[in-house]
Amino acid sequence: MKEYNIAVLGATGVVGQQMIQALEEYGIPVRTLLPLASARSAGKKISFRGKEIEIKEATSESFAGMDYVLGAVEASESREFAPHIVRSGAVYIDNSSAFRMDPTVPLVVPEINGDDAFRNNGIIANPNCSTVITLMAVAGICKISPIKTMIASTYQAVSGAGINGLRELEAQNRALAAGAKPEAKVFPTQIAENVIPYISSYTENLYTAEEMKMQNEGRKILHLPELGVTCTCVRVPVMRSHSISVVIRTERKVSIDEAKAAVRAFPGCILAEDITDEWGKRDYPTPLDTSGIDTVMVGRIREDLTDPNGLALWCCGDQIRKGAASNAVQILRHLISG
Amino acid sequence: MKEYNIAVLGATGVVGQQMIQALEEYGIPVRTLLPLASARSAGKKISFRGKEIEIKEATSESFAGMDYVLGAVEASESREFAPHIVRSGAVYIDNSSAFRMDPTVPLVVPEINGDDAFRNNGIIANPNCSTVITLMAVAGICKISPIKTMIASTYQAVSGAGINGLRELEAQNRALAAGAKPEAKVFPTQIAENVIPYISSYTENLYTAEEMKMQNEGRKILHLPELGVTCTCVRVPVMRSHSISVVIRTERKVSIDEAKAAVRAFPGCILAEDITDEWGKRDYPTPLDTSGIDTVMVGRIREDLTDPNGLALWCCGDQIRKGAASNAVQILRHLISG
Repeated sequence: MKEYNIAVLGATGVVGQQMIQALEEYGIPVRTLLPLASARSAGKKISFRGKEIEIKEATSESFAGMDYVLGAVEASESREFAPHIVRSGAVYIDNSSAFRMDPTVPLVVPEINGDDAFRNNGIIANPNCSTVITLMAVAGICKISPIKTMIASTYQAVSGAGINGLRELEAQNRALAAGAKPEAKVFPTQIAENVIPYISSYTENLYTAEEMKMQNEGRKILHLPELGVTCTCVRVPVMRSHSISVVIRTERKVSIDEAKAAVRAFPGCILAEDITDEWGKRDYPTPLDTSGIDTVMVGRIREDLTDPNGLALWCCGDQIRKGAASNAVQILRHLISG
Repeated sequence: MKEYNIAVLGATGVVGQQMIQALEEYGIPVRTLLPLASARSAGKKISFRGKEIEIKEATSESFAGMDYVLGAVEASESREFAPHIVRSGAVYIDNSSAFRMDPTVPLVVPEINGDDAFRNNGIIANPNCSTVITLMAVAGICKISPIKTMIASTYQAVSGAGINGLRELEAQNRALAAGAKPEAKVFPTQIAENVIPYISSYTENLYTAEEMKMQNEGRKILHLPELGVTCTCVRVPVMRSHSISVVIRTERKVSIDEAKAAVRAFPGCILAEDITDEWGKRDYPTPLDTSGIDTVMVGRIREDLTDPNGLALWCCGDQIRKGAASNAVQILRHLISG
C-alpha cells in the first residue's frame, strides 16, 4: 500500500490534536507524520500510533516532501502558509474559513460532494462545523427534492471556540459552585448557566459571519446557488457537539417516511429512533450522545406547519470530529482511495 | 381604594410564590391574602408585606368570600378546583393549560389582548410561558402588519419544570464537579452540559404539546385564527429565563427600523440595543439579563433571508415572572383597574 507524508499544521489545538487521532483511527497509511505548530510549542511531543513525535515550528520551508497538509490554524495563518504548501507540491486540506468561498477551491463534505475534492488546485477547504452537521442531516432529503430554503437555530458547544472556550466554561462553573462571580474573556458575557446569541462578528446584513456560513457554504456544498438560509447561531453551555433545529423547504413535498428513509440511507448519519433501545423511550439525540463519535444523529422529523413542502428536524454532531477534524481526514481518505 | 380578597392556589410552588411576590410588587390592593396548597404544606407560613401568613389546605370550600383566585397548580388539579372557585363567585386566573383553549375562557397577555379578560365567565387563562415571551416580542410588529407564520426554536430554562427541575440541574452540576455520574429523574436525560429537544409529551403530529401551544395559544391571543407556527422546544442548562429564536412572516414587508420602533413602543418590551451602555458592546439579550425582571428583551432583528416579508429576531424573558406569575397578576391588575 502506498504511504504518505502528512503534516498537521496547528497540531496542538483542539482540532489539530483530533486530526492526528483521526489519522490513526481511520488507518490512513502514513509514512511520516509531521506535527507543526508555533515556535512556542516546538519541541513538545505528541503521540501517534504509540510513538512520541516531536512538534516542529511551522515555517515557509516546513512542507518540503509532504504529500498532504491538514490545516487547523486561524484563517490569517492559513493564508500565510497556503502559498508555501502549494509551492511544495502538497495538497492542503484547510479547516479555516480562508479559502472556503474561493471559486477555485473545492469545499467538501465527502458524503455529499466528495468528488469535488478531485477538482483542486492544491487547496481543499473543510466547511464550517455547524454547516457540516446540518448539511449531513439534510443532504439525503435534498437528493429526493432540492432544498430551496432552510431556517436554522443552532445550539453550539463552547469547544467550538477552542480549548480556551472549554476552559472558560469550566472556570465559570467552578466560580458559580464557589459562589464567586464568573469572569468572561473568551465569550462576550457569562456562558455558564446562560446562552449567547452571538458567535464571531456582525456582517453588513446584521447576521454574524458564523450565521452567513450556513447559506454561503451550503450553496457551494449542495450545488444549490439559489439556496436561502436564515440562521441564528447561539452558544450554549455544552462542552462538545453542536445541535441544530432546522426547517427545510424542498421543491416538492417530501413525506416524513421518505425523509426518515433518506436519513437512514445516508452514510455517516443515524436516525436516533433506530437506537432508542440504549436510551429508553428517548427517540431524539442530544449533544452528549454524539460527543466523541463521527456520526451525525437526526431526530424530531415533523411536517412544517407553515409550509406544505417543509420539514422540521433536529440534529447533533461532534463539531470537533465530523464538524472539523474527521471531515478533513475523510477528505484525505477520499483523495487517496479515489 | 377598594380592596380584594385574593387566594393563591398552589402557593408553595415556584410560580405560586412568585405570584405572592408580584401581588406585593405591583401594589395590588389586597384585603386578605389566602395561600392555599396541598394538605402536606398546610400550616407552613409564607411572607407577604412583612407579615407571616399561614398556608391553608385547598378544599372545595376554600374559596368562599374570595374576589380573585390565582391558580398555580397542575392542569388536573385546576380542573378539579375550577367549578368550586366559579361557584364561590370569585374570578379564577389560572396559570395551567386546563382552560386555555376553551372558547368560553379568555387567554390573556394584558399588553396584547387585555380587554379579552373582561369577557370572562369566571375563568381567565394565563398562557404558556414561551408563548407569552415570544408574543410579547412580536406583538408590536404584528400591529404594523399581521403575522402569517412563525418558526421558533426555544432555549428553555430548567425552572420551567418547577423547583424539581432547578434542583436536578443543581444536583447534576454538583455530580459533574465531583466526577460522579449525574442522575436524571425530572428530565429524560442529563441536562447539565447538555440540551434536550423534548418538553412535555408528543401529540399526534409528532410535535410536543409544549410546541403546539405556540400555535394554538398564539392564534387565540393575537386573534389570528389562521396563524401557522412551527416550533421546536428545547431545554437548556439555564436556571431561569427562556430565550426564543424566531422568524416571522408578515402580510406586508416590515422593515428593520419599523420593527425596532414597534418593539420600543410596546409596553413591557425593551430593545436590547437601547441599554448596551450596561453591557459594553453587546446589543442582544441573554437569559441572565432578564432573570428576575418582568421585561421581555429583544435583539438581533434582521431581514429573513428566505422570504422578503420575513424578520428574524431573538428574545428573552423570565418565564416564572412574565411567562407565568407576573402575567397573571397583571391580568388581575387590568381587571380591577378596568
